[in-house]
Amino acid sequence: MSDIKVKNKLKRTPLTNLTAEIAERARKASFILAKAPSGPKNDALLHMAGGITGRAAYIIGENAKDVEEARAKGLSPAMIDRLRLTEERLEKIADGLRQVAALEDPVGGIVRTWKRPNGLIVGKMRIPLGVIGIIYESRPNVTADAAGLCVKSGNAVILRGGSETIRSNVAIGEVLRDSLREAGLPEDAVQVIPVTDRDAVLEMLKLEEYIDLVIPRGGEGLIRFVSENSRIPVLKHYKGVCHVFVDESADLKMAERICLNAKVQRPGVCNAMETMLVHEKIAKKFLPSVAGKLEDEGVELRGCEQTRKILPGMKKAEESDWHEEYLDLILSVKVVKDIDEAISHIEKYGSMHTESIVTENYTNSQKFLNEVNSSTVMVNASTRFSDGYELGLGAEIGISTSKLHAFGPMGAEELTTTKFVVFGEGQTRE
Amino acid sequence: MSDIKVKNKLKRTPLTNLTAEIAERARKASFILAKAPSGPKNDALLHMAGGITGRAAYIIGENAKDVEEARAKGLSPAMIDRLRLTEERLEKIADGLRQVAALEDPVGGIVRTWKRPNGLIVGKMRIPLGVIGIIYESRPNVTADAAGLCVKSGNAVILRGGSETIRSNVAIGEVLRDSLREAGLPEDAVQVIPVTDRDAVLEMLKLEEYIDLVIPRGGEGLIRFVSENSRIPVLKHYKGVCHVFVDESADLKMAERICLNAKVQRPGVCNAMETMLVHEKIAKKFLPSVAGKLEDEGVELRGCEQTRKILPGMKKAEESDWHEEYLDLILSVKVVKDIDEAISHIEKYGSMHTESIVTENYTNSQKFLNEVNSSTVMVNASTRFSDGYELGLGAEIGISTSKLHAFGPMGAEELTTTKFVVFGEGQTRE
Repeated sequence: MSDIKVKNKLKRTPLTNLTAEIAERARKASFILAKAPSGPKNDALLHMAGGITGRAAYIIGENAKDVEEARAKGLSPAMIDRLRLTEERLEKIADGLRQVAALEDPVGGIVRTWKRPNGLIVGKMRIPLGVIGIIYESRPNVTADAAGLCVKSGNAVILRGGSETIRSNVAIGEVLRDSLREAGLPEDAVQVIPVTDRDAVLEMLKLEEYIDLVIPRGGEGLIRFVSENSRIPVLKHYKGVCHVFVDESADLKMAERICLNAKVQRPGVCNAMETMLVHEKIAKKFLPSVAGKLEDEGVELRGCEQTRKILPGMKKAEESDWHEEYLDLILSVKVVKDIDEAISHIEKYGSMHTESIVTENYTNSQKFLNEVNSSTVMVNASTRFSDGYELGLGAEIGISTSKLHAFGPMGAEELTTTKFVVFGEGQTRE
Repeated sequence: MSDIKVKNKLKRTPLTNLTAEIAERARKASFILAKAPSGPKNDALLHMAGGITGRAAYIIGENAKDVEEARAKGLSPAMIDRLRLTEERLEKIADGLRQVAALEDPVGGIVRTWKRPNGLIVGKMRIPLGVIGIIYESRPNVTADAAGLCVKSGNAVILRGGSETIRSNVAIGEVLRDSLREAGLPEDAVQVIPVTDRDAVLEMLKLEEYIDLVIPRGGEGLIRFVSENSRIPVLKHYKGVCHVFVDESADLKMAERICLNAKVQRPGVCNAMETMLVHEKIAKKFLPSVAGKLEDEGVELRGCEQTRKILPGMKKAEESDWHEEYLDLILSVKVVKDIDEAISHIEKYGSMHTESIVTENYTNSQKFLNEVNSSTVMVNASTRFSDGYELGLGAEIGISTSKLHAFGPMGAEELTTTKFVVFGEGQTRE
């Protein structure tokens, strides 16, 4: 069987065969990649980085066709900017691949071992998951970022990007596949699905015999579609309704800095603060000043009744505001009577993404860390640090708000699992 | 709202309400249990152990009605024996609960921490998953075993056993709930669904807002039904086609002991050997002796062509034999030319459960450990050790042959996940 050319002409191949064939090739490649030592995997990543910049003209040329079509379709300038590739952006992608190459290999290490009374030594060894499907929208950098992390962690990957960047994704995919071949690894470890019909996604989500994990990256609609239709385990991230709780004992200057940073440094992302909770004992002192600074930055505030007693001009927060992920310069503000009310509010309205307490009280810092079971819980730090790079994972393939397998930012290690390894001396069971 | 009485009279409550109500109560209880220190959790487990033996007469009485009905339905004596409870069996269940109480608390520990260049200390803290649904068949001991592990790991549990032990399960459930209350914990942390319609299972599998994980325990039919109908992540274990590979350099006496133990010590379980792979260089020497001993134990052998050249009387193994989980005194035997052929055979026909190599060659032992990605991979030990107790997990809630979240035997720790905890000093993001 000749190699699948990831080209538009293949669009005529019957879907069922194409998706299943891609998945079967991925499975085969995954066995080889799982056994590959770090050397060839890192070689491939460095070849990828070199290829992305070395073949920039080709990639940008294919991307220009996507941009042209997006313009003809009347996409917004902001959307078009998201899908555009420039030399600078390609250089950033290449940098990312080099950083991933420099990470420690997450595969093959034995996490810990212990000895059984009968002398057996038991350990847990990290191994790749197998085949990972990534279903994403818009930004074509995901093609290279996701593929890089999968190869590093010994997994084969099937990439299915949005129709608006199909040519860019296919072009980047070609470069990545060539790089694998140059490093002596199977090129089918990275495959871009060259068709954009939603049926191809549905097909893919049924191939649980071949694909071990699906990661959707995009809007809530895409994520719901994937998780409702998948027979394969899905790692999903719905939304981030992140809270900062300013405790009675907080250093108010620090609290102000953290709240401003968490809200305005980049409001359109999932780890930005959406609700600020303030202890009632310091509300009168803290709120006027922080509200003024937030408003100076263009933030619209929506307050609970008590907040509006202190700042009567503020817009009223409705029940729906506490559930809202604004992704915008809007903030809901609530005065709470103590840390327990803050925690209850987070349990009721939070999305289990990221919460931070600002406090100088040891007991309350411990209570917050222990009792709030969001994926990232912080003391005296901005929620904006909840991100794979910032937390030191080296790179990020997504943020899981479901608890199974991984919870929170996911790097290369989260794309592995462990097997038990047992060293015996002839033991048999009685 | 008054407490749900886990009694048959509730069968008339509309299903939709009942299952959702149980799940909602479980969710609420899970928040309290997640925060509970080790003390009350262990108290509850010890109360449970005491209750199971202290109220043995009541439990055995309810169980007798199940046995009676099973007999009337014409179930086989073996099946009836599986569902029967005796004082001795209850004592064993109580012992299991005491052992779980003695385990280290898997919740609240920080697995590891690291420091970021900006001074943030980042760590991963173990937390419960939340609410776990167990769907099982036959043996009523699962009710107590599973509930014990869930409570230990801070999870609320919803138990849905088979119709043939409904009264036994409900009776055990009452004892467990009383024990939780005695320890000051919410009794809704353990709930037995008191109806046996399959619709109740279907209802349950849609409640992804309330239930974090579903573990089916039973035959392949049950497991397929659950995983095909669930919107909640499922930890599944299909079957165990376990292999022992006897390498060229094996100590043949040790190999014989291991193969005999792996096949005949308890042939009806998933970690028994189903296929024996033998290196061609030692086949002539090894096969006649081991075959004789296996046949002495009543094992029927089915051999490949090369095996049958050495032992011409042996039945022929068909292609389907290599896929077969016999769960019986039957063994397929194949001669392979080297370790690579052994590994390829396992990749092609194995079920990713447990494989063992018998070898004195260091390189081959490492190769087998590294390249075979089954959930448990052993050197010089019987596959029968692949079990939560034997591997030192203290107890077992199941064996996962899917790689997500947990792979292999699952104990209390596998019922937890980790959240990121971040200790700051006022850091904001630039």
